[in-house]
Amino acid sequence: MIRTLAALGAMTLAIPALANPLPTLAEAADAAHRGDTIAWDFLEGITTEVGPRQAGTEAEARGRAWAVAWLKANGFANVADEPFMMDTWVPGDIARARITAPFAQDLAVLPLGDSAATPVGGIEAEVVYFRTVDDLRAAPAGSLKGKIAFISHAMSRTQDGSQYGFAGPARWVGAGIAASKGALATVIKSVGTDHHRNPHTGGTDFPDGVKPTPAGALSLPDAANLERMFARAAGKPIRMKLELNPRRLGRTQSGNVVGEIVGRNPSLPPVLLACHIDSWWNSPGAFDDGAGCAIIAAAARNAARAGQPLRTIRVLMAGAEEVGLFGSVAYSKAHIDEPIAVGLESDFGADRIWRFDSNFRETNPALHKKIAAAVARFGVSAGTDVATGGADINIVRDQKGALIDLQQDGTRYFDLHHTPDDTLDKIDIVQLRQNVAVWTQVAGILANEESAILTGGVVPSAPPIMQNK
Amino acid sequence: MIRTLAALGAMTLAIPALANPLPTLAEAADAAHRGDTIAWDFLEGITTEVGPRQAGTEAEARGRAWAVAWLKANGFANVADEPFMMDTWVPGDIARARITAPFAQDLAVLPLGDSAATPVGGIEAEVVYFRTVDDLRAAPAGSLKGKIAFISHAMSRTQDGSQYGFAGPARWVGAGIAASKGALATVIKSVGTDHHRNPHTGGTDFPDGVKPTPAGALSLPDAANLERMFARAAGKPIRMKLELNPRRLGRTQSGNVVGEIVGRNPSLPPVLLACHIDSWWNSPGAFDDGAGCAIIAAAARNAARAGQPLRTIRVLMAGAEEVGLFGSVAYSKAHIDEPIAVGLESDFGADRIWRFDSNFRETNPALHKKIAAAVARFGVSAGTDVATGGADINIVRDQKGALIDLQQDGTRYFDLHHTPDDTLDKIDIVQLRQNVAVWTQVAGILANEESAILTGGVVPSAPPIMQNK
Repeated sequence: MIRTLAALGAMTLAIPALANPLPTLAEAADAAHRGDTIAWDFLEGITTEVGPRQAGTEAEARGRAWAVAWLKANGFANVADEPFMMDTWVPGDIARARITAPFAQDLAVLPLGDSAATPVGGIEAEVVYFRTVDDLRAAPAGSLKGKIAFISHAMSRTQDGSQYGFAGPARWVGAGIAASKGALATVIKSVGTDHHRNPHTGGTDFPDGVKPTPAGALSLPDAANLERMFARAAGKPIRMKLELNPRRLGRTQSGNVVGEIVGRNPSLPPVLLACHIDSWWNSPGAFDDGAGCAIIAAAARNAARAGQPLRTIRVLMAGAEEVGLFGSVAYSKAHIDEPIAVGLESDFGADRIWRFDSNFRETNPALHKKIAAAVARFGVSAGTDVATGGADINIVRDQKGALIDLQQDGTRYFDLHHTPDDTLDKIDIVQLRQNVAVWTQVAGILANEESAILTGGVVPSAPPIMQNK
Repeated sequence: MIRTLAALGAMTLAIPALANPLPTLAEAADAAHRGDTIAWDFLEGITTEVGPRQAGTEAEARGRAWAVAWLKANGFANVADEPFMMDTWVPGDIARARITAPFAQDLAVLPLGDSAATPVGGIEAEVVYFRTVDDLRAAPAGSLKGKIAFISHAMSRTQDGSQYGFAGPARWVGAGIAASKGALATVIKSVGTDHHRNPHTGGTDFPDGVKPTPAGALSLPDAANLERMFARAAGKPIRMKLELNPRRLGRTQSGNVVGEIVGRNPSLPPVLLACHIDSWWNSPGAFDDGAGCAIIAAAARNAARAGQPLRTIRVLMAGAEEVGLFGSVAYSKAHIDEPIAVGLESDFGADRIWRFDSNFRETNPALHKKIAAAVARFGVSAGTDVATGGADINIVRDQKGALIDLQQDGTRYFDLHHTPDDTLDKIDIVQLRQNVAVWTQVAGILANEESAILTGGVVPSAPPIMQNK
């Protein structure tokens, strides 16, 4: 005991007599892990004071204005809302589905993005049941004329979210395929893994030359009920009445919110941390993607606690991601000639990061290993996949630049994705703080990197890949 | 090994050479525990082919007709739908709440039973926040004039459901108290324990002389959001726009569905197993109370597998329980002169039974102990509380007869209670079968009891308590 106290005394004496010496980057990350408050402040604020933020609407504009004010209040420089124009779809306020025969029961439904409206009062037609999109693809041309297609699927929870690619086509292309075979309308089992009466919306695509039809998502329990009805109907036709009134507003304004922690050498390509500010109209967007914006903004601030970084850290809160990555595309178009050193996106909730991948493991192994060593204490392993970046960093892919993916635990993600249940209470603050800590550590390393991040070589005037263009 | 086989051979020879000998009651209960299919058949059927069953409406009538057909198909005798008339309230199809200032956000709301309608287009007013019903009680007379009251509470999950009594008053009496102090309308935090955007409806009472006002339940996440708005509004008034259009239909018909396993001596007072057939309009009523009806019906059938019981087992699927126990009251009124031997109700979901209580532990200790010994193998302990019976067995309380409560695990119950999420997928078939097994065992013991159940004495022509009237 005495020895320990003596050692502590010596250590205390050894610390330089500065008032509030700067923490190291590792200390800043550890502090965020223990008790970051910045991310929660952003997330509680935007979900409470704004709520849902459908792309291209006044609600998204309020969300952007809120984010601009928050970034300024939190010490970001060069804060701006960079406008772009987009084609805007809104869901309307009528979404009703009812089985009328041989049983009678309402089903919970919401329109999919880009759904057409039914006539006022709705349509009523026989439902044709497809267990999978492949079953629908196999249906003969014209065979759905005058019918409503019901497309099901079975989706399992996965940590890496990989079953989104497995089940997602029911939503992404199902309505278009059904319409091409003559269907009046389509309903799908929600692409999700929960058991609640809240449908998962999301975008659907109608191919060129196929006129959009009404298209809706049933909640998982309602889709399961409809499947049971088919099993119990003994071949009798199942009829559905469906009414949806989404509409198109034409061209409206959206925007990309940006803000910076300016680096000591602002002429160096910046580190770009991205998220999206919009959400579907039915969802307060806590997981998707308020959390992502909260994490990257908190990480930028925390990394700066260790001293002004060498490179600028720029946060990009993209508009209109959900409806077609319009913000990401607009940002790339506007800034393609301004090299980005490295891009990272957070858009998969707020649960624990468990792996990191980069696209420079072979070209800059020293940096890859340095990051691996720095995040290991947070339970993050180094992966061998090649990072591809997220939806909001088109600019980095367009520049063929450096990318890092910080892989989050997505086990719960598709319980909440695009539903009204994506609310603040779903955020586990302990896991949120682990995200902030990992991002603080990684953003800080990248922002203080003197060499070119993709290659480890001398920093060129533009990323090497652009010079090769 | 050889010895065992020899012993088995001897046992086989010892079994009487009957084709399909009847199982014992214990064997019938064990078989139900392993693999009952009857309860699931009822529950899948009524939730799939009928769905929500609001009291006094055509939907409840379809539910009763479905139950009558099912009971007949499953071998019950004396199946009937005994009609009664009731005052009927229906929820309408508009339920909208939106905070308009200082923030703007829609909140998920549903009307409470007996809520009045707002004017068409809704009302908009300042919201006054009460953390508890006691805080509301303390508000000065007239202080809510022109305002919307928001009543919150904090409810915890409990195995025995006891926090329903703690949190329930916010719904049961909150709107009436607020109206008596001049409130234009009331919204409450849903009485529930989940985190989903599905409000919990349920009845509310306006005292005599207090004119009903619009009254709604916000989902738990929305109520939490409104609380955060108050914390962040810095004293600025919070205004809500509320539109609800419930209405009263006047007198309509409901009914009580009954069916019997007729006993060897039908002149003995029967065993009454009860549940309710109605549900709130927003809920398919799997837990509440499709499961109860499924459990009692399956138990009656399974108990009869051990041979025709001495006493008749009667199932009562009461109508219009949710809106004021109208079916239970009507049943008692119609049959008060027909003695019931013992009454039991199942109306607390489908999770495991963990305790049983009776009101004859002291007057008929032999029977209480016999039941305790018979259900112990299913993990059911004998309690010392005095059973009070459930909502649907008014007749037994009115007759001051024997009661048993089979206490279910209610940990999940208030996640689902009176919400759209009360769907078939929430039923855990293993726990459902444990319920059926326990009910089979208990109903079988009671139906074969030769003595008076309440006292253990000689069976009188009517229960002793009635002779004392």
